[in-house]
Amino acid sequence: MDGYSRRAFMGRTAAFLAGSAAGGKGILSALDVKSAADKQGVAPAGKPGGVPFRLGLASYTFREYSLEETLAMTVRLGLKRITFKDFHLPLQSSDEDIKLTVTKVRAAGLELYAGGVIYMKLPEEVQNAFRYARAAGMDIIIGVPEHDLLPLVEQKVKATGIKVAIHNHGPTDPVYPTPESAYERIKHLDGRIGLCLDIGHTQRADTDPSLSAERFADRLLDVHIKDVTSADREGGTVEIGRGVIDIPKFLRTLIRIGYDGTASFEFEKDGKDPLPGVAESVGFIRGCLSAIGVGPL
Amino acid sequence: MDGYSRRAFMGRTAAFLAGSAAGGKGILSALDVKSAADKQGVAPAGKPGGVPFRLGLASYTFREYSLEETLAMTVRLGLKRITFKDFHLPLQSSDEDIKLTVTKVRAAGLELYAGGVIYMKLPEEVQNAFRYARAAGMDIIIGVPEHDLLPLVEQKVKATGIKVAIHNHGPTDPVYPTPESAYERIKHLDGRIGLCLDIGHTQRADTDPSLSAERFADRLLDVHIKDVTSADREGGTVEIGRGVIDIPKFLRTLIRIGYDGTASFEFEKDGKDPLPGVAESVGFIRGCLSAIGVGPL
Repeated sequence: MDGYSRRAFMGRTAAFLAGSAAGGKGILSALDVKSAADKQGVAPAGKPGGVPFRLGLASYTFREYSLEETLAMTVRLGLKRITFKDFHLPLQSSDEDIKLTVTKVRAAGLELYAGGVIYMKLPEEVQNAFRYARAAGMDIIIGVPEHDLLPLVEQKVKATGIKVAIHNHGPTDPVYPTPESAYERIKHLDGRIGLCLDIGHTQRADTDPSLSAERFADRLLDVHIKDVTSADREGGTVEIGRGVIDIPKFLRTLIRIGYDGTASFEFEKDGKDPLPGVAESVGFIRGCLSAIGVGPL
Repeated sequence: MDGYSRRAFMGRTAAFLAGSAAGGKGILSALDVKSAADKQGVAPAGKPGGVPFRLGLASYTFREYSLEETLAMTVRLGLKRITFKDFHLPLQSSDEDIKLTVTKVRAAGLELYAGGVIYMKLPEEVQNAFRYARAAGMDIIIGVPEHDLLPLVEQKVKATGIKVAIHNHGPTDPVYPTPESAYERIKHLDGRIGLCLDIGHTQRADTDPSLSAERFADRLLDVHIKDVTSADREGGTVEIGRGVIDIPKFLRTLIRIGYDGTASFEFEKDGKDPLPGVAESVGFIRGCLSAIGVGPL
């Protein structure tokens, strides 16, 4: 059992462990407290425990803004982790320019943990994506490699240790429309190739994001968290909580499977003034987690 | 038992009713579903039920903005109810001007349910507050009448049917520092005189807002919902969820006591740019309610 399968296995067994001595402090005991508290109709005092995953920002949200504005708004949202779309760090940047940008990110108190979505249609684009990610110190490339490039992607993953999270883009995407379509292509490859589960595009394909997180837990490397107006291709991004996705169920699923990556907000709406909408979305997720009993992130 | 005591009584017995046939559909059954769902570690499907109270905006939040901007931002937040501070409707406005403003509020799809905080140090100010509220069609005056004006306030309440919710302003306020200090002054007066529970100022007086809501349920007419950085006079407003108030506990308390008024966001921070912070706060409350299992408002 490699590290990735083990994590998923541990996640799946969390429900059993919760009742045992292995529960201890942290998430499981917090959920225990919550469950006991619910029976009495009161919340646990204070904000106990933590959750296994962290919150971040997908910078596509601030595509109309400069790097500096993007960092400032991310800090204002109280987020600590960020993933850059190429607006904020062009794919053709020199290693030197990349390092300069990373210095600014760190100075803002943020961690640049991933880049993407990066499309890879040619071998040179695969090579460059890994050069770019390595120069930036990214853990993960959120990518859309053409199917025939997957062997090269695997080779690069093995050579660099950088993970690749394949992004599903919904019912109109011919390459990876659903999490399942990506999973089927990568399940026999190196365990560091997995999924960036975009829950909006998943719901747009009329697939339950919670079910997808559960089914593909062993390859879940990143999450784009959002909400959509309808469970079909017409569904558009909306402030989290105003759409059709069952968010509390999804968060409970992430906790149950022991997801320990990042859930990054990608808010496509109001491109020229997204801050209030993404702030409302961040608040909604923190509020859900707080009521679930594991405290805000 | 008058209408106000009855409501509180019904609220307090909700926990018992939840397990009985009287539970039926709605809040109580939604909480039941949630409790059962929690035991299995999953949320109920969809967003069931409702909550007994509604969300609104206290326009002090947008004190640096015009009436039109305030209405537009309230609509953007998805709120339907508003209470005006005098920045948006001066207390000395003529009845005609008041009606003009109310027309604009209604055209925006909002309900102007209250006005305040209105300070009353002179009998003329009491008279004017009721004239103002009546002209605006407000249900409630959120007020701070001097103690010796309470008999006049009661007389006006009886004459007009307009309620008065006394606002607690924290440890430095000599008139009504805590909910208890207000309750003690009004508990023998007409049942339509009650409290606007400001949970930030309550926590600043190192008093648990949930306990106050429970204790004074029979006179709880309005709520200012917010969060503060510390449980003392130094505590300042912060985005809900980032402060010290146990918000899930407070919301569960409001549901349990059957509070059927409004919880209005009053966000004192970032006066010149409050929208992201209040949006985060609105999201937090909706997220909490969603995870509690009664669905977003």
